Amino acid sequence: MTIGIDVGGGSIKGALLSEEGQIIRRGSRKNDTQYSNDQMIGAMAELILELAKDVQVDAVGIGMPGTVDDEAGTVPYANNIRFENVDLRGKLRELTGYSVRLVNDANAAAFAEAEIGAAKGAQSVIVVTLGTGVGGGVILDGKLLTGYTGAASELGHMVVQKDGEPCTCGRRGCFETVASATALVRQTKRAMEAHPESLMNRLAEKDGRVSGRTAFEAADAGDAAAAAVVDEYLDGLALGLANLINIFFPEVIALSGGIANRGESLISELEKRVYPQTYGIGHAPRRTRLSICSLGYESGMIGAALYAKSMR
Amino acid sequence: MTIGIDVGGGSIKGALLSEEGQIIRRGSRKNDTQYSNDQMIGAMAELILELAKDVQVDAVGIGMPGTVDDEAGTVPYANNIRFENVDLRGKLRELTGYSVRLVNDANAAAFAEAEIGAAKGAQSVIVVTLGTGVGGGVILDGKLLTGYTGAASELGHMVVQKDGEPCTCGRRGCFETVASATALVRQTKRAMEAHPESLMNRLAEKDGRVSGRTAFEAADAGDAAAAAVVDEYLDGLALGLANLINIFFPEVIALSGGIANRGESLISELEKRVYPQTYGIGHAPRRTRLSICSLGYESGMIGAALYAKSMR
Repeated sequence: MTIGIDVGGGSIKGALLSEEGQIIRRGSRKNDTQYSNDQMIGAMAELILELAKDVQVDAVGIGMPGTVDDEAGTVPYANNIRFENVDLRGKLRELTGYSVRLVNDANAAAFAEAEIGAAKGAQSVIVVTLGTGVGGGVILDGKLLTGYTGAASELGHMVVQKDGEPCTCGRRGCFETVASATALVRQTKRAMEAHPESLMNRLAEKDGRVSGRTAFEAADAGDAAAAAVVDEYLDGLALGLANLINIFFPEVIALSGGIANRGESLISELEKRVYPQTYGIGHAPRRTRLSICSLGYESGMIGAALYAKSMR
Repeated sequence: MTIGIDVGGGSIKGALLSEEGQIIRRGSRKNDTQYSNDQMIGAMAELILELAKDVQVDAVGIGMPGTVDDEAGTVPYANNIRFENVDLRGKLRELTGYSVRLVNDANAAAFAEAEIGAAKGAQSVIVVTLGTGVGGGVILDGKLLTGYTGAASELGHMVVQKDGEPCTCGRRGCFETVASATALVRQTKRAMEAHPESLMNRLAEKDGRVSGRTAFEAADAGDAAAAAVVDEYLDGLALGLANLINIFFPEVIALSGGIANRGESLISELEKRVYPQTYGIGHAPRRTRLSICSLGYESGMIGAALYAKSMR
């Protein structure tokens, strides 16, 4: 059996998976970004031992935010939880006896979707997560693309609009600045100011905030200003997805994050925009399938487990 | 021994390689984009038989412009030489007895650089060719990235400047529109018009044309308008290279094409611009090495041979 741990800023979640990939046990520990490294690692160790109780565990995977170096077993840098050059494998080996594998959390989630989720059976998969930022992962022939530096693919930090909006990474016009939920909220707020009569303002007042849903819902109800926001957002998202297709020509691109809850209507809008931008599409024997991730918030811990199993 | 064939619009070049990758024989046939498919295939077959004379050949690779489907053995589309859904493997098997492997020509060249050229021994390699367009290839763990559709990575057709210059592919602001030799010539011509006093005008007159060298040479001589052109060009090139690093975090990016003849001075200018745009560079244990391709114009046929050998 395999254990997968998903380390988040607010909690550490874990699961014990059967050989068939079914979740047999779940567990969690509170986490806090103010905890010391040792406190967090102690909580991970407790959770691993709880999940491993009385069963034969063959692999343990830890999904971490930030940059992991699975070869070395270290976490060079995870800003959010203040890890810097932490020998995580060594410390967890001491505390649990298991030699864990390390994987970036977004990569873990992508790996799960590729192995048993929305893209199961596909030869090459890109998962794009549309959240506060834009993250994800690339899986080629069942193998996670991690690169020479141990860093995860930072798909959100491909510039698509030179001199565009400032990005948290320091560049301008990254894919993240046009396709994240944060970008959609920013676009929505601008349009609400410019169009005080728009339904978006009334929806946001009712919800108490502007969210990634505000413009989509107002557009569904026929609001023209909202439709323009949705259009701009989808154009930006489609542009980045078309870039990824032209680079990788993957079998599947699967989307996750709140905006992906739009489901099939999102996919059909994107297909209209993405395919015409795909290089040589008129002559390609096959085209990339666009789809929605299916595993939800558990994909991180499932993926960490599956990754560890795949590296055995 | 292995044969590699590089099919270009003006000629078909071929080489016989020893097991150690040394060229033992060379050959070529005239080609013409107006030739029929059968004429071209006949010329390829002749050249293969000539190179294979009296030796034991274990693999034959054909580097082709356009989209190849090596699994099927077909060329779905090669605009330049007017191939469309051609069963190239089948036809060459009939004519030569060899079951050839097919590879995109830019991918073949990249594969050669990764195997025995500038990036020999590297785990992950991206070759970027700065020519009329921007092409190249990606090699991960010794395997060429070709994607689900059989298409080569079209690194030049990643949009980096939404609504930028029109690209031959139909999109706007592709990497190619800022980083190809064509882009540099366009930028140079604009600056020459705006600055008739610039040395660029005199150099171009002497050469009889504006080339990718005009701005670089004038900038070397201290011309300010030329320095601004070079600066803009290098910024655009660096932006796309940083995107590729953030996506792949490869061990090596190697540049080829006329502009790459600038050599180490180009690399040092690019390092200054690329590394600060690389995600998490301050915390990365290693960084991508930028370098210049070393195999020159023979990389296409060498790579076609090495690719065929690797797929045996």
